[in-house]
Parts: sequence; structure tokens; C-alpha cells
Amino acid sequence: MKKLINKPETFVRESLEGMALAHPDILKVHFDPTFVYRADAPVKGKVAIISGGGSGHEPLHGGFVGKGMLDAACPGEVFTSPTPDQMLEAAKTVNSGEGVLFIVKNYSGDVMNFEMAADLARAEGIRVLNIIIDDDVAVKDSLYTQGRRGTGTTVLAEKIVGAAAERGYDLRRLADLTRKVNMNGRSMGMALTSCTVPAKGTPTFDLGEDEIEIGIGIHGEPGRERMKWRPADEITELLALSIIEDPPYTRTLREFDEEKGEWVEVELTDEPFKAGDRVIAMVNGMGGTPIAELYVVYRKLAQICEDKGLTIVRNLVGNYITSLEMQGVMITLLRVDDEMVELWDDPVLTPGLRWKA
Amino acid sequence: MKKLINKPETFVRESLEGMALAHPDILKVHFDPTFVYRADAPVKGKVAIISGGGSGHEPLHGGFVGKGMLDAACPGEVFTSPTPDQMLEAAKTVNSGEGVLFIVKNYSGDVMNFEMAADLARAEGIRVLNIIIDDDVAVKDSLYTQGRRGTGTTVLAEKIVGAAAERGYDLRRLADLTRKVNMNGRSMGMALTSCTVPAKGTPTFDLGEDEIEIGIGIHGEPGRERMKWRPADEITELLALSIIEDPPYTRTLREFDEEKGEWVEVELTDEPFKAGDRVIAMVNGMGGTPIAELYVVYRKLAQICEDKGLTIVRNLVGNYITSLEMQGVMITLLRVDDEMVELWDDPVLTPGLRWKA
Repeated sequence: MKKLINKPETFVRESLEGMALAHPDILKVHFDPTFVYRADAPVKGKVAIISGGGSGHEPLHGGFVGKGMLDAACPGEVFTSPTPDQMLEAAKTVNSGEGVLFIVKNYSGDVMNFEMAADLARAEGIRVLNIIIDDDVAVKDSLYTQGRRGTGTTVLAEKIVGAAAERGYDLRRLADLTRKVNMNGRSMGMALTSCTVPAKGTPTFDLGEDEIEIGIGIHGEPGRERMKWRPADEITELLALSIIEDPPYTRTLREFDEEKGEWVEVELTDEPFKAGDRVIAMVNGMGGTPIAELYVVYRKLAQICEDKGLTIVRNLVGNYITSLEMQGVMITLLRVDDEMVELWDDPVLTPGLRWKA
Repeated sequence: MKKLINKPETFVRESLEGMALAHPDILKVHFDPTFVYRADAPVKGKVAIISGGGSGHEPLHGGFVGKGMLDAACPGEVFTSPTPDQMLEAAKTVNSGEGVLFIVKNYSGDVMNFEMAADLARAEGIRVLNIIIDDDVAVKDSLYTQGRRGTGTTVLAEKIVGAAAERGYDLRRLADLTRKVNMNGRSMGMALTSCTVPAKGTPTFDLGEDEIEIGIGIHGEPGRERMKWRPADEITELLALSIIEDPPYTRTLREFDEEKGEWVEVELTDEPFKAGDRVIAMVNGMGGTPIAELYVVYRKLAQICEDKGLTIVRNLVGNYITSLEMQGVMITLLRVDDEMVELWDDPVLTPGLRWKA
């Protein structure tokens, strides 16, 4: 294993220290327990948005802390859920009194720990709602998941909901908006190569010299199918059509019902994309893919969307939710309305996304 | 070879088509001859800034076309110089009448072709000056170079000089500023892995499972030394001290003397960094390195700069000048004065760098 790290045990901490040194105007890092938070937190009168999950997906989530996006992010060790004490301390630090929204990717450990943290925070008088993102159409149930995995839509949700929080939306409205983003976003990824978790030191999975994995998870979890390499246009078509033509998907997600004072199961069904839809399209590198290749994928994706009657109104091409040094790509399409596009265009100042600031 | 491409022959073209589709508000792409140019070119009353070079280093240069940076970029095939007809057509397209500055990385083919293009443009009545960037302290003379290679400082020069052009600096003053940036910038890189040029299909060089190359070039040219892998802090120290402690370097670069109406050789000597200097620090990924690892490098670089009395006033951590999917890192330090910092902070709107816009 050759990486630009010192030791596996200190990798996450040293990376966060470097991020804090590089962006002191944007964020700070607290250790023991570990969380990244806005330099100007708590922001008076604003609901705080917190996310988190295992490290190794940078810039997600720590790189999205800053004005217009997250108030705090809780990083676990590489591909390992953060713990409730991190989330609780983060919530206490960034809560301005308006409450906290936890945006949670659908992995069993993350869901459980954010739920526990929400209960702990409520016991300390902080209002908290949790919304789960489960947008990966590749597989139902996976190595670390019941139901679909949470992937690319998380990035778009954090931007849109972060902007809404900045505009003064209250906690309930932000939770509704996050759920709406999840119900309109779908993703699927693929890998050309594996990644290597530092603590393990060997590749997570083996792919032959001419093999690719379609439907890969962001931790290298198995996807839909292993196949021979094929041209980028065919790969793009496989991913895009899986997303666009995915039939309605019904899931049951846990949310906290404030009236009842307890966790309830909410049944949610999404709607397939249809001609006339406007979308934000993300072509996301898995960490080790050159951006020039991502543009080759975007080129084909734009053609497919046009053929299907989908209008791409905004796009992101780059590395936003990654799997260490994995080579590969993930496509996310998010159906948007005027409100979501306006929020997308609002200023953002984070290490990973920055405009109008 | 597994890449997200269709065929080696169409890679550069399709990638540029994708970039144009993704950023129609920022740039356009012209084919035959090929160049990327600002969507709003020519910009009245402004000197046009043009750069270019082989593809495979994205976002450099095409990804830096846009308001506040380049007016046009001329991409060659992967790791291959663009041709004079590309540069000439680009110059004719973006020249507003105020003249054109060519920013040229010091590779023999680029230098020769940009010089020929300048002569052709002058023959058509366009004022052109060429300034060469040769900032890589790793080696003197290399596979494609007489003298030092042009690397990371090019990114910083394009940002700073692009902002100055936006402010209305005239051609001569922009040339002087670019030369000043080059005289104050130094870089050095290293590789953990090779890259694979699509048309060749096999790695450019072989590195053992536990080997790294210090002083690598952005085309995989040999560096100073091949050695066993070592921790990120030691690698960072090797690169940073090579940059900071590099003795004064004297080079002879060709520039066009408008009074004499001919190309002349200009002897230029830079000054080593010293305590009290303010610098912009770039930790640049070579294309396949996760950003989390780049922050580990930035952490150590910040410590070293502090120890040496250098104040990092601005920084960039990410992939800006790459070598396809190579894993590795390049450090650039640029000594800055107030003017350069102000220009750095000016708005920029390009696919690769964006702020305040």
C-alpha cells in the first residue's frame, strides 16, 4: 500500500488537521470527540444542519462545512460510522436554539448512531429531526445497508438544504425539503479499480485487468454486475438508464414524530423521471478518476437526458463523494423545481463547493 | 488499460465536448483547429490571456478559461504540444484589439510553437508577447525540456495575471507581472504510481510496489530520485525543503522585444525564499490522489513554512495541474506582495477555479 499518509491510525486526524489549517476562515475541527464545524457557529436564528459518516468520501462531509451548506460534520474512521458522542457534541456546539437537522446516509451504523444522538440531544433540550438519504438504485440491501444506500443525492441535499437554512427555513420545513430532495434524487456508480482502506492495507475487492463493476457502493460494496470493460458511452448508458428507468421504489424510513414524541416508520415512494422533468446532473468521480474522463461521461449523459426529454438545468462534474483512490464514476440525477434551483444558486463557501462567495 | 474513454483517438475531443456542454455559460470550444475560449470573447478593452499545452493535465488549461483567468486555451493531444494554427486561431478569436499574452510552460514543443504562433499573429497585426514559466526545481533539463520544466506556478500565474487583465492592465504590464510570478514561484512533485497515456495503453514508467519517484514531471518524466515509500511527512519535507532551500537559479528565456522587433534572450535569476516572505501555497494532486491525503501533506507543509518563517497567506489544496490518473502530489510556493494577493482574491469564474462569482 502506497499512500500519502503517515500511519493508518493517524490518517483521519492528520487530514482533518490539514483541512483546518487550510481553511481557518471557513471551519474549525474539534477532537475527542471529532467533528468539523463552521468557524462562525452557532449562527444566530438559523437551524443547524449536521451530517457525517465514515471518512474516505472526501470532500463529503467535512469539506461541505461552511456558509450555505453544513454547520457541522462528524467523520468516523475510514468507512466506519461516527459515534453518537460526536454527533451530540457537534449538535451542542452549532445549535443556535433553532434546532438541528441530521442528514443521514442510509447505512445501518449511521442510521442507528444518528438516531441515538438525536435522542441524547433531545434529552438535553435540543430539537432534532433526522432525514435519511437512500438514493442508490443499484441494489436493495447491501453489505452495510437495509434498503438502498445513500450516495450522490446527499451532496445535492446538503447544498440545497444548507441554502434553505441560511434563508431562515424552520426545522420542520427543512426536514420536509430534505425528504423531497431524497424522493427526487437517484444515483448509480461503477468502478474501474478497487480502493484500499489504510487500516487493512490491501484492496477491498479484486477486479481483473479488463473488468469493471457496475453498481458499486462507495465503500467498494458489490454492485449489480461485474463485466468486461466497455467504452465510456456504454458505461454511461448503463448507469443513466438504470437511474432514469428505475420503477417507483417504496421504502420505509424512520423519522421522529414530534407530536407523538417517538420514532415512527414513514412509507415513501418515489416517482420515475419523465419527459419534461428538469434535473440537476452530477457526474462524480470516485476519487482516482481524472476530470477529463468525467467530462467524457458528462457528454454522453447530456445526450441521453436530451433523448429522454430531461432538461439538465445545473450540473456538477468532479470529485464530491468518493471512495478513497477508487477509479470510477457515479451519476446522480435530481428532479428539481424552481425552489430547489434557486436554493442551488445561493452562495456557498466551503472547501468542496464554492460560488458567489 | 481501463479508462472512462471510448477510444484513445477521440478522448481529447469528447472530453472537450463534455466540458462545453457542462459550462455553456463560461466557455465554448472550437474544433479544427481546437481551442477553448471564453463564452463572451472578445472582451472589449481587455488584453487576452492565452495558454495551452498537451492534454492530460486537467483542469489546466481548458478548465481555467473564463472570467478572471484565461481568454483561451489550446489543448494538444495527451502530453503533446498544441500546434501554431490552434494558437493563431485562438488569438484571432479572443483578441479585442488590446493584444494577447501567451503564458507558456517550458517544454521545447510548447515554447517553439507558441513562438511561431506569435510571429504569425504579429504578421496579421495582433500584438503578442510570450512569457515562459519554468518553476520546477526538481531537475535542470529533462525529457521534453531545456532548463527547468513549467509546472504548478502556471496555475497561480494564470489566476493572478487573468485578474490583472480583467482590471485593465496593458499588455506590457501583464507580461512583466507574469515574469514576476515566475521569478517568485517554485514547485516540486512526486509520484506514487505512474500514469497511462491512452494512445500507448501501458504505464509510462514502472514503480515497484514500495517505490516512489521524487521530482517527477507532469508527463511522468524521471525526477531526482527513486526511493522506498516513506511517510507523508517525510515526503512533504523532501519536497518543501527542495523548494525553499533551492539556491538562486539563473536561466535564459526568449521573449519578444517590441522595440527591436525581434526575439531576444533574457537572463533571469530568482531569489531563494527567506524568513518573512509571504507565500501562496498549493498542494496539488497529480490526478489520482484523494483530497484527504493532500490535506495530510498540507498539514506538514504548513508546519515547515512556519518553522522557516514563511507566512502562508492563501492556499489551494486539490487537483489543478495533473498527470492523468497518476497518484502523487506537487507542492508550489509563490512569494507574493500586496498586489499579487489582491489579484488572487479577485473574482474568478472557470470550471476549475471559482469564487466571488
